[in-house]
Amino acid sequence: MDYRIIKSPSQCTLDILRRRMGLECKTNLKDISAIGLVQGKIIDMIYAADIAEKAVGVTVEDIRGSCPQNMILIGIFGDTASVETAIAEIKLKMGEGKVK
Amino acid sequence: MDYRIIKSPSQCTLDILRRRMGLECKTNLKDISAIGLVQGKIIDMIYAADIAEKAVGVTVEDIRGSCPQNMILIGIFGDTASVETAIAEIKLKMGEGKVK
Amino acid sequence: MDYRIIKSPSQCTLDILRRRMGLECKTNLKDISAIGLVQGKIIDMIYAADIAEKAVGVTVEDIRGSCPQNMILIGIFGDTASVETAIAEIKLKMGEGKVK
Amino acid sequence: MDYRIIKSPSQCTLDILRRRMGLECKTNLKDISAIGLVQGKIIDMIYAADIAEKAVGVTVEDIRGSCPQNMILIGIFGDTASVETAIAEIKLKMGEGKVK
Amino acid sequence: MDYRIIKSPSQCTLDILRRRMGLECKTNLKDISAIGLVQGKIIDMIYAADIAEKAVGVTVEDIRGSCPQNMILIGIFGDTASVETAIAEIKLKMGEGKVK
Amino acid sequence: MDYRIIKSPSQCTLDILRRRMGLECKTNLKDISAIGLVQGKIIDMIYAADIAEKAVGVTVEDIRGSCPQNMILIGIFGDTASVETAIAEIKLKMGEGKVK
Repeated sequence: MDYRIIKSPSQCTLDILRRRMGLECKTNLKDISAIGLVQGKIIDMIYAADIAEKAVGVTVEDIRGSCPQNMILIGIFGDTASVETAIAEIKLKMGEGKVK
Repeated sequence: MDYRIIKSPSQCTLDILRRRMGLECKTNLKDISAIGLVQGKIIDMIYAADIAEKAVGVTVEDIRGSCPQNMILIGIFGDTASVETAIAEIKLKMGEGKVK
Repeated sequence: MDYRIIKSPSQCTLDILRRRMGLECKTNLKDISAIGLVQGKIIDMIYAADIAEKAVGVTVEDIRGSCPQNMILIGIFGDTASVETAIAEIKLKMGEGKVK
Repeated sequence: MDYRIIKSPSQCTLDILRRRMGLECKTNLKDISAIGLVQGKIIDMIYAADIAEKAVGVTVEDIRGSCPQNMILIGIFGDTASVETAIAEIKLKMGEGKVK
Repeated sequence: MDYRIIKSPSQCTLDILRRRMGLECKTNLKDISAIGLVQGKIIDMIYAADIAEKAVGVTVEDIRGSCPQNMILIGIFGDTASVETAIAEIKLKMGEGKVK
Repeated sequence: MDYRIIKSPSQCTLDILRRRMGLECKTNLKDISAIGLVQGKIIDMIYAADIAEKAVGVTVEDIRGSCPQNMILIGIFGDTASVETAIAEIKLKMGEGKVK
């Protein structure tokens, strides 16, 4: 799993993300100050999306659009502190939902 | 094969899943309290779906939609106990249908 | 190459297969009692489909639908004995058509 | 590169091939008695198609249809002797067009 | 991650790029004198696009169009000095946004 | 990177190429006597296309059409001497545009 945080994303970056999120995107990209990106196996990304969504002050989107592959990318949108907290949560809790 | 169980899935998680399940989805995502995710080779996932469906109290969906790859993901929906039982069944019986 | 046999497939399993077989499917999935699944390289699967089709009492379908990848899956449909025979035939004859 | 020859292909095998060849297919699949299959990198398959086409009595088709991947499959159609000759030609001449 | 700079790109090169950038392309390809290409994992390319966009005198485009894969390519368009600066910036700052 | 040159391509080979080049193809395939094929990473192929286009007497096309993958194939069309020169140029200059 890879993680990145982009602070004050440029217009171009938002455009690339918007095009890859499809029409169902519920996040208003104008109101955010940071983007967290997490890339990994689809089964882990759905789990990570659930953890992030339960954190406060962020929304979560599935970035790759209509032709998903094995590895996908989720975006976590919000202010910088919230995005950092959501990513910290994901790291903390990724091990919990695993069924050995 | 990877397994995960998400308890009380967030709205966002359900949205990501719903978009990837296509229109033929027969599960009412509002009535469930847990999601089991199993990812693996398509031949094994079809076999696992059959095992899970024969367990009690769950429905099974093919998550990836219209552009399937080699590795796919199935979702098992129901209350927490039923999902856990279905996943336990899959683990127990995956070896049986193998033709050596 | 991977092989699996599903006996008395559940409704859900048939639904997943039906969605992946496209509209040209000639098999009536209601009349069968077993499904044989074989996954492998497309060149080998076309060869295996030919062997299975020449066995008695089964029909053969290409499972992956409209966006084929390198590895594909074929389904062999019929009663349990016929499906088992067809898969035994595939194993026996896969080596014959190889050009060294 | 993998090679296979199917003699007297079954109806089902022809159906699977026909669906994967798209509408531009110029081969009349009813008139053939053998199919040669060659799978490999697209650059090599285009070269192999050229060699086979220059052999006598066969037609060559690109099997994978509209969503090509890195590895593709070509079919060589004709009577058994012609298909065998075409495949022998491919093996003989594949080294010639290589630019080191 | 791979990097390349094309100075005074030929018409053909611009045509190939234009076809892969889709309709949302905001760069006027007639006005540029150099193209920087950066290829890598999608999570890194979105981050790189943000770095490049914050550099002066370049625009950034997502090259692969509508069927993205894991690895994508971004193009950085502008005069030669600006493109070289943007790529130097990407190399310098790629490590910063990483969350360990 | 793989290279191949096809001299006096057969009609079938031209048909396979034409179908994979899409509608924007500007090369008149009837007028050529040789085809150079180069397969590699997209970032390198765009660079190679630029080198070939700057050589004399050839046109360059992107072969894979609408669903590009990581590895793509370009075709270089012209008379045999021009195609051989263009491919020699690509080999000579591929190292130059690399940014270390």
